[in-house]
Amino acid sequence: MFEAVELGHRIGAGRYARELPPLRADLIAAQLQLIRTRPFSVVIILAGMDGAGKGDSVNVLNEWLDPRHVQTYAPAESLARDGDRPPMWRYWGALPAKGEIAIFFDDLYSGPIRQRVYGHVGNSELDQALERNLRFEKMLVAEGVLVLKIWLHLSRKDQKKRFCQLEQAAATRWRVTAEDWHNHEHYQDFHRIAERALRQTSTAEAPWTLIEGSDRHYRELTLGQTLLQALRQRLEAGEARHVVNVTVPPRLPRLDDRNLLRALDLGRDLAKADYDRQLAHWQGRLSRLSRKKGFARLSLVVVFEGNDAAGKGGAIRRVTRALDARRYRVVPVGAPTDEEAARPYLWRFWRQLPTRGRLVLFDRSWYGRVLVERVEGLCEPVDWLRAYGEINDFEEQLVRHQCLVVKFWLAIDADEQLRRFRQREAVPFKQFKITAEDWRNRDRWPLYEEAVCDMVERTSSDIAPWVLVEANSKRYARIKILKTLCQRIAAALRQQRTPEAPARWSS
Amino acid sequence: MFEAVELGHRIGAGRYARELPPLRADLIAAQLQLIRTRPFSVVIILAGMDGAGKGDSVNVLNEWLDPRHVQTYAPAESLARDGDRPPMWRYWGALPAKGEIAIFFDDLYSGPIRQRVYGHVGNSELDQALERNLRFEKMLVAEGVLVLKIWLHLSRKDQKKRFCQLEQAAATRWRVTAEDWHNHEHYQDFHRIAERALRQTSTAEAPWTLIEGSDRHYRELTLGQTLLQALRQRLEAGEARHVVNVTVPPRLPRLDDRNLLRALDLGRDLAKADYDRQLAHWQGRLSRLSRKKGFARLSLVVVFEGNDAAGKGGAIRRVTRALDARRYRVVPVGAPTDEEAARPYLWRFWRQLPTRGRLVLFDRSWYGRVLVERVEGLCEPVDWLRAYGEINDFEEQLVRHQCLVVKFWLAIDADEQLRRFRQREAVPFKQFKITAEDWRNRDRWPLYEEAVCDMVERTSSDIAPWVLVEANSKRYARIKILKTLCQRIAAALRQQRTPEAPARWSS
Repeated sequence: MFEAVELGHRIGAGRYARELPPLRADLIAAQLQLIRTRPFSVVIILAGMDGAGKGDSVNVLNEWLDPRHVQTYAPAESLARDGDRPPMWRYWGALPAKGEIAIFFDDLYSGPIRQRVYGHVGNSELDQALERNLRFEKMLVAEGVLVLKIWLHLSRKDQKKRFCQLEQAAATRWRVTAEDWHNHEHYQDFHRIAERALRQTSTAEAPWTLIEGSDRHYRELTLGQTLLQALRQRLEAGEARHVVNVTVPPRLPRLDDRNLLRALDLGRDLAKADYDRQLAHWQGRLSRLSRKKGFARLSLVVVFEGNDAAGKGGAIRRVTRALDARRYRVVPVGAPTDEEAARPYLWRFWRQLPTRGRLVLFDRSWYGRVLVERVEGLCEPVDWLRAYGEINDFEEQLVRHQCLVVKFWLAIDADEQLRRFRQREAVPFKQFKITAEDWRNRDRWPLYEEAVCDMVERTSSDIAPWVLVEANSKRYARIKILKTLCQRIAAALRQQRTPEAPARWSS
Repeated sequence: MFEAVELGHRIGAGRYARELPPLRADLIAAQLQLIRTRPFSVVIILAGMDGAGKGDSVNVLNEWLDPRHVQTYAPAESLARDGDRPPMWRYWGALPAKGEIAIFFDDLYSGPIRQRVYGHVGNSELDQALERNLRFEKMLVAEGVLVLKIWLHLSRKDQKKRFCQLEQAAATRWRVTAEDWHNHEHYQDFHRIAERALRQTSTAEAPWTLIEGSDRHYRELTLGQTLLQALRQRLEAGEARHVVNVTVPPRLPRLDDRNLLRALDLGRDLAKADYDRQLAHWQGRLSRLSRKKGFARLSLVVVFEGNDAAGKGGAIRRVTRALDARRYRVVPVGAPTDEEAARPYLWRFWRQLPTRGRLVLFDRSWYGRVLVERVEGLCEPVDWLRAYGEINDFEEQLVRHQCLVVKFWLAIDADEQLRRFRQREAVPFKQFKITAEDWRNRDRWPLYEEAVCDMVERTSSDIAPWVLVEANSKRYARIKILKTLCQRIAAALRQQRTPEAPARWSS
């Protein structure tokens, strides 16, 4: 794979001086169009061998482009605050808004490759990291992001030559470190493992571009041309996204009236005295569980979804009353801000994730995409269809990172909803809870029902199962929610005591 | 001070049941108007004695109001990631957007008071913390935020009674902790120190409201009424801000032609060979300094301001080339996003602060307020006049927190600017750098000059001095910048070796 970039590509000073100015003019023109029209964002993943000019490439890109719209993101390998959240959290945080360019510098791939070379991880962990990158890139491409993966290469001989050159001149001596020479000794391992990694991750959506790095002129012009062509192609395509033959599978009409929701026994209820007793019991238990020492190593994401007027707010308050205000946050999910709307869908949820020892309660959530956005036609079928996979992937990353994910669907029937709507309209301080939109949603009851059933079917996993809550009785629903939370937390704490526990909790 | 709230205020169940529903209706109506029209944001600072119902108050506010627009912010006392940035960073991060309500729960004041009670800090440190809070509140009020400071009080006798009551019922026993009883033993100290703290911080802009907390009915109705009246008053006032008699001092015309900028010797230059040699020297030195062990305990904020076309971008690139891409971030400052525009002016800069061991380079900065915003009339005189004090305060917080603040003004003269504008227009890939706005700004040269001189006069402190850079020669400017950075970092590293070094660096 690397043969073609160990050929000694070279471009003379004359040709470089001739070709660079028009290239720069074209590049800046393309970028200005990008900034002005904001049709998409660009992520450049830059990796390669030591000494192949990765740092220099970042510099020239910043020189050629308007650097106010280019952000370089190069995470330090160990940051205390990163360790608190799943590894991909930092890349999500660094995603550019539409019109902007981000350079992800030498970590997404070089990190895992280096760890493999030095034997800190095995092949399966390397594969896992690569798979994780691929899913991330696939999501980006599906969200319309232009993803460019560039590998700067250097043969063993050229690497040595480069280091020696830098060391000879006083002006550049500081740029070669002991680590560079140490890596050079392992060149063959880097070569072998990188080749395998690149082969595995060169996909149709986001292929690698290999560039030989030994000659500065060749490297710079090739890099510039690569970026220019990619920008132009996408700008000409307009807002049309790079969707490769996505066929939406035909949807069968349901053959009978049975479904998950209708199978629920919504008649379940609790007497007032029983409710009061159980409420105190489970709130006390939840409070004690959240103060246990082991809880400091967990984090907890709780999702509340449900029909309009199903009682999400009231249930959330019964939970938070048992918690120390310093430990939880309630995140209501409404219309996205412009910073959120300019980035891939899940960005706004990644930015809300709790650190260890904390809870975040989502009042509505990322499931909006497969519920309201699907039913109201706010996104294309291809978008909500891929959302199931992206959501499962998102939740799996949380669970792997010792984050407990608990998801509640609060179900009421149409009669109960009508009763509550009317009741809300009758009480002055509750009128705000009921809007024209709520009545409109009611008309689409069957469509929402279908969307909920699909959602549960496709996203209820054993690591993050849906809990369907019979919510015609608020008392019954609140107790079920508190009890479930306690049981899930207790199970997770027990699991901690097993050394090397797999990152899974069954419900 | 507390006498009036140890009287045993009480409201019967009948009156409570009568008065609560209309109060709730009025509160939610006022909040809906706030959400719809977004004229300002609300910060409720909630503090008080243990057992006085702080937690319950948060709960009822969430029940009475639309909780999707109420965020409770209760920082845990020690968070690793908070320690990386100045203490007020977390409160800045939690500031609500216009239309939103934030409850700052029991830490801004209770934290310092508790530390004083247990002798962890002395009176002067307590005063310092209180002063810091006052400046923060003053800034919020000036930015149009409605600030409500509420202290829930309880006499010693009532506190004991409250804890005993909670412990007797199985349902609430979990709510009383050993720490609560421990604090109770120190009640008199809490009383004395809190009284002093409240006296000191009850200002005209943000006075304390004391509420006796022993009777739930009395407490809730008083809290609700307090919030309602404050909301109504501000909503009726419309967008008009709560500006208390700010007189803009008359501005004397300058009596001669001398000023800081004209005193600069812009003829300074460097020969190419000398430049190349010095560039390599200082880049190498900067690289080594940034890798020193002590640097991991510093953070570094570098501000680049200057005339249009003064060479900020080129200077920044000469600096970043010497740095590990994993350690620095360049923040270009342009138009604010909607999340930024909805919050106090400095919010967007607080969110960009570096953690320890990192550098952030601002390409333009918070000084925009006293430069372009002043000259172009984008804010009121009263806004940019107060900005000097707020900026000094901001930078002082940074410096106190071992963050080195280095500020460069790149000065060129009008002839040199014209030459560069024309040059930019002649080179295709530089044309984007020159816009109609640049030509417009040029017409206002004297106004900008005056603004720059005022800025330097009012914000060049010995802890964060301005460095005026003669930039007619790009070479001279770049070397001066690199050299200054190296010297400031070296001085800061030396200072670290002095134990208990005062948080100051002289330039």
